[in-house]
Amino acid sequence: MSNTFGKSFCITSFGESHGHMIGVVISGCPAGLEISPEEIQAELDRRKPGGPSSTTRREDDSLQIISGITGNRTTGAPITLAVTSHDIDSSAYAKISSIPRPGHADYCARIKYGGFSDQRGGGRFSGRITAGFVMAGAIAKKLLSKSGVCIAAHTTELGRIQAPNATWEEIITTSRPNELSCANEAAASNMIEAINKARNKGDSLGGIIEVWATGIPVGLGEPVFDTLDGELAKAFFAVPGVKGVEFGAGFASSRLNGSQNNDAIIVRDGEISFSSNNAGGVLGGISNGMPLIARVAIKPTPSIGIPQDSVDLNTMQPVRLEIKGRHDVCILPRAVVVIESMTAVTLVDFAIRAQIIPGVIK
Amino acid sequence: MSNTFGKSFCITSFGESHGHMIGVVISGCPAGLEISPEEIQAELDRRKPGGPSSTTRREDDSLQIISGITGNRTTGAPITLAVTSHDIDSSAYAKISSIPRPGHADYCARIKYGGFSDQRGGGRFSGRITAGFVMAGAIAKKLLSKSGVCIAAHTTELGRIQAPNATWEEIITTSRPNELSCANEAAASNMIEAINKARNKGDSLGGIIEVWATGIPVGLGEPVFDTLDGELAKAFFAVPGVKGVEFGAGFASSRLNGSQNNDAIIVRDGEISFSSNNAGGVLGGISNGMPLIARVAIKPTPSIGIPQDSVDLNTMQPVRLEIKGRHDVCILPRAVVVIESMTAVTLVDFAIRAQIIPGVIK
Amino acid sequence: MSNTFGKSFCITSFGESHGHMIGVVISGCPAGLEISPEEIQAELDRRKPGGPSSTTRREDDSLQIISGITGNRTTGAPITLAVTSHDIDSSAYAKISSIPRPGHADYCARIKYGGFSDQRGGGRFSGRITAGFVMAGAIAKKLLSKSGVCIAAHTTELGRIQAPNATWEEIITTSRPNELSCANEAAASNMIEAINKARNKGDSLGGIIEVWATGIPVGLGEPVFDTLDGELAKAFFAVPGVKGVEFGAGFASSRLNGSQNNDAIIVRDGEISFSSNNAGGVLGGISNGMPLIARVAIKPTPSIGIPQDSVDLNTMQPVRLEIKGRHDVCILPRAVVVIESMTAVTLVDFAIRAQIIPGVIK
Amino acid sequence: MSNTFGKSFCITSFGESHGHMIGVVISGCPAGLEISPEEIQAELDRRKPGGPSSTTRREDDSLQIISGITGNRTTGAPITLAVTSHDIDSSAYAKISSIPRPGHADYCARIKYGGFSDQRGGGRFSGRITAGFVMAGAIAKKLLSKSGVCIAAHTTELGRIQAPNATWEEIITTSRPNELSCANEAAASNMIEAINKARNKGDSLGGIIEVWATGIPVGLGEPVFDTLDGELAKAFFAVPGVKGVEFGAGFASSRLNGSQNNDAIIVRDGEISFSSNNAGGVLGGISNGMPLIARVAIKPTPSIGIPQDSVDLNTMQPVRLEIKGRHDVCILPRAVVVIESMTAVTLVDFAIRAQIIPGVIK
Repeated sequence: MSNTFGKSFCITSFGESHGHMIGVVISGCPAGLEISPEEIQAELDRRKPGGPSSTTRREDDSLQIISGITGNRTTGAPITLAVTSHDIDSSAYAKISSIPRPGHADYCARIKYGGFSDQRGGGRFSGRITAGFVMAGAIAKKLLSKSGVCIAAHTTELGRIQAPNATWEEIITTSRPNELSCANEAAASNMIEAINKARNKGDSLGGIIEVWATGIPVGLGEPVFDTLDGELAKAFFAVPGVKGVEFGAGFASSRLNGSQNNDAIIVRDGEISFSSNNAGGVLGGISNGMPLIARVAIKPTPSIGIPQDSVDLNTMQPVRLEIKGRHDVCILPRAVVVIESMTAVTLVDFAIRAQIIPGVIK
Repeated sequence: MSNTFGKSFCITSFGESHGHMIGVVISGCPAGLEISPEEIQAELDRRKPGGPSSTTRREDDSLQIISGITGNRTTGAPITLAVTSHDIDSSAYAKISSIPRPGHADYCARIKYGGFSDQRGGGRFSGRITAGFVMAGAIAKKLLSKSGVCIAAHTTELGRIQAPNATWEEIITTSRPNELSCANEAAASNMIEAINKARNKGDSLGGIIEVWATGIPVGLGEPVFDTLDGELAKAFFAVPGVKGVEFGAGFASSRLNGSQNNDAIIVRDGEISFSSNNAGGVLGGISNGMPLIARVAIKPTPSIGIPQDSVDLNTMQPVRLEIKGRHDVCILPRAVVVIESMTAVTLVDFAIRAQIIPGVIK
Repeated sequence: MSNTFGKSFCITSFGESHGHMIGVVISGCPAGLEISPEEIQAELDRRKPGGPSSTTRREDDSLQIISGITGNRTTGAPITLAVTSHDIDSSAYAKISSIPRPGHADYCARIKYGGFSDQRGGGRFSGRITAGFVMAGAIAKKLLSKSGVCIAAHTTELGRIQAPNATWEEIITTSRPNELSCANEAAASNMIEAINKARNKGDSLGGIIEVWATGIPVGLGEPVFDTLDGELAKAFFAVPGVKGVEFGAGFASSRLNGSQNNDAIIVRDGEISFSSNNAGGVLGGISNGMPLIARVAIKPTPSIGIPQDSVDLNTMQPVRLEIKGRHDVCILPRAVVVIESMTAVTLVDFAIRAQIIPGVIK
Repeated sequence: MSNTFGKSFCITSFGESHGHMIGVVISGCPAGLEISPEEIQAELDRRKPGGPSSTTRREDDSLQIISGITGNRTTGAPITLAVTSHDIDSSAYAKISSIPRPGHADYCARIKYGGFSDQRGGGRFSGRITAGFVMAGAIAKKLLSKSGVCIAAHTTELGRIQAPNATWEEIITTSRPNELSCANEAAASNMIEAINKARNKGDSLGGIIEVWATGIPVGLGEPVFDTLDGELAKAFFAVPGVKGVEFGAGFASSRLNGSQNNDAIIVRDGEISFSSNNAGGVLGGISNGMPLIARVAIKPTPSIGIPQDSVDLNTMQPVRLEIKGRHDVCILPRAVVVIESMTAVTLVDFAIRAQIIPGVIK
């Protein structure tokens, strides 16, 4: 297992779904950053179950600051943040431990870790570990805000319902209060309908999250290997359920001609800019000053009520598996803040490497 | 700049388009691997210009083994492989050095490196640096072949022409000899037509490359951050022109229900397998024993003959830019081996980390 | 700050002297290792104050297993271990916060972290953080014991009292129960006398710790940069107070002729061995099969009762500083287990990289 | 093998003693640094054989700039520097390939690399690879000079002849022109006498090199693991023959009382300073603004003319080994620039991480 991400702003993730704590250690955060527990908790709360698509499982996720922050200021020492697990019901899992669930990592994990991995609630592969990502993201966002970088993600597609393209203003005004984080109210209500239908059938849904980051200076990204887009993609694939990542026009750009896809270079307000943003803010692995735009495809929640074919690994006999636990019909609404967080963590790392964020925040 | 990729099998890239040498240093390759210069050269030759879509520029790319291999065996020491640059014509570039080319990294690089970067031929951002990736890939493929892993990529879409889904057999039999690396002959000839049309207009095309890797054992990938899919995505985004990456059903999986997308777990020939491969061979960031399938979206070549809008950075005045150099109409046919190579390099790194490839090859 | 050590077996340290918890996250520990809380606690207890040279401060250091171990078996997930801080008395520190203590990192830290670092009890620079090293070391030692590697350190010099050279048997039989971890009883009682004298004067003492590791296979170490000796040295310098590191004959070897210093190669019990061990078990950065022997010079505890010259950073006026807190006269007896732990952590990392320790312990 | 050192300023070493090229790839060097081939060559020349203690082997070591520098300016791209090997005489080595040489890594390497390592001239373990360190050091020194950091090493002991303590002025004025890099002429001539005696007996000598770096700002070093002293120690142990490293009073500090060893904090010229430098410029792993002072113990050259006991690994029979090749009686004079280079490379890495050296040099 490899549980540390980043070179200058490094996050180390720990915890399992049904363990004592889920958390993160952040190493390399500049000293002096002012941040309150409430600011971090507010981000954690955006990840809580409770929306129309989510589990009835209670996850309090109340923040504990274990190290690295005193008097609401970072000290330069590693910052350890955690949430304690409550309301754990492992009974549903205990029964099926020899039967891997389709769409989950159960089988891979069993082979890789010799049967010793903690399977309860998905263990290390549970979406619950993203609580750690969100706590790190809260620190990263605060740091970025000092440099004028602002990050927001929204649900652009859910259960085959596509929201129309949104502007930055729509994203930050409409999607945030919306319980699906969708920037379009009409699409959101169609999505809720799709969710209800899927729930009634015991089925699940996927979708697409789009994340924007504005205010990024030119020059973030360290090609040829630590590209801005490549590192963000790696960060996104750490989020359970992600199956695809694209930037700007993305897959659609592969269907354009060069004369259509190239963003013309212009002068706007006395500064170099671009007439369009097919590049999604990144060229040659480096930010070009335009808004960073990435889209992340998330598969439908693998835990479904509908019976599925699996195999009992003890007997190697086929079994018909019915999953009973409490699950999200669709993780997208809760994943929005997670995608934002991984974006923030990645951008901060590059901003420190590019010396845009200093070693001490005064 | 960050020019090293991998944790156990590390490749360090060096060279610029119009510099003396393009190359790679490989650290961590097991000792004792038998590999001939001809095997490496054969991979380099697959990257050469010459097909219907490519530049008339001559790139001999003849291999030099600088260190780490004696008597056709790796020694355990770092392996340095390089090609020397010939037939360099920088004249076309010299003239436009203050005018960034749309779709290229010129502007970002100028800002990031304070105007000191070598712009000739795209410098460090040129596709030519992928010659180093291919040389490293040749070593990686040979190593993987010892464990029964086989990698092949093919062009599935080019200039809006989609080839039908291909089987593994079609990919390895039809696509390899095909000059577009397309597994379907009819689609390939339509693609050539599209290329010719684009060339006549001075325009360029993009497309999609699909890469398969078969024979992968269960357990490659080191979540939660060094996931198999995330690290591959990072590797792919190091290839100039890549704008999107997906695995298995990818973006399409976000439109399926869980009951459709989950691959049922079955017993096949006494072994655990899956009834379908929507996962693309990876679950929870770990290989599941099914073929790894990834698709990479490549944008149209940014260098086009059609005049484009840019700005002279010295005067900040708009200019109409005509690019005269010799360029590929579409890089896909040449990028196929590059995508294979980055796949191989990534898989080897994980295979060593998982102790599936030993420290010495006997 | 950089708080992660190791490439395959990675430890991430967190916590400050007067913070809530001191701990460590271990990533890359093989799954399946059997280890009880008692085994880890026993190592922690060896670091406790209480001996003749130590502080009267109470440090309970009772272990909390936060993640990665269930049913006394490692799961493959990151292992988080921590101790909670009790009996914290920051009053002595609060008063002198603008006056850096000679021999401490106070001044450097203040400049580097812009005055935001947590100074209480030395904060992040306190010897207390080595509790985390010891918990990681307990896991590492258990892993190594599976491969027949055994580690023991002892005090060879303290307050100018030198113990005679010890054999491996003397080290493991005599030094362990000894309250100074000295393998020679006569020397130990002289050392206690020196400690008492120094305490009475309000002064402090340093000394030398020697660590042995036996049972190491040939081939640990990854030159040219990740040498066995270099990585161990780096690990040792992370322990507060270390000012020098040597291997085998060390500094004395620089005064020998080659004909004296070279260890002749012989056959012993049918295996290649060496007639002497001036190399200290490492040649060319790689273990040679002989016992690894390193010596670590530790400076006298910088906190002393005798008044010292410093400067008030607020006024830039000289001040006469008297340190009142509770301090160890000499940290060596408590540092012995810390040096062993860093040795173990480093060796495990190399043993995993050399595939001598497998990914799963059955 | 691990051949990359540094996190922000990364050097990757390649080449073997009798291979085609010895070199280094530097990644992360700021763009815009002015440096001429002559400046790099001048450092290489300091490493050349030719002094009283060295081999008669000719090593031209003439610099090739392969990438990353155009018009005497770094471009931000990876810098590849190399020397080509000439005058290779492998005949002496070929005969003894199954007989490991005492004091060398032959036996370890044979086991670790399964007999596939290139043994000629010591292969990857030869002192010749330090030519790459020196080329990287030349770049690093030039970068540091922009921030007022100056590095000089000198021979303080050789063949049991100790030079008296030297001041910074003596080091930079006397030691540099001296053929042994000793700051004291009388000691130097005694050292030459010792060298001649040892040569006549077919024996070899070791010694101690002391390196100083002045002008270092407070705050270099990233504890708790990437300490300034720990990282330097790791860098030094990559130099063949190093058996010990100490900082400031080093091992001697372990024999002082705290009241003697603590450097009093004072005001000098309106700035915080220290009354003495027992710390050697580093406290808590961070530079404290005083000159950095490290001492490195180097063992006697293992290749000696006097017959030695070894074993033929093919027959496992004892053999009496006479080494005939051309060897340095003592490597210290040539190692001085190598130790300086590793110091420079390490300091630059920390200076970039601390944002003291910017991303672009104007």
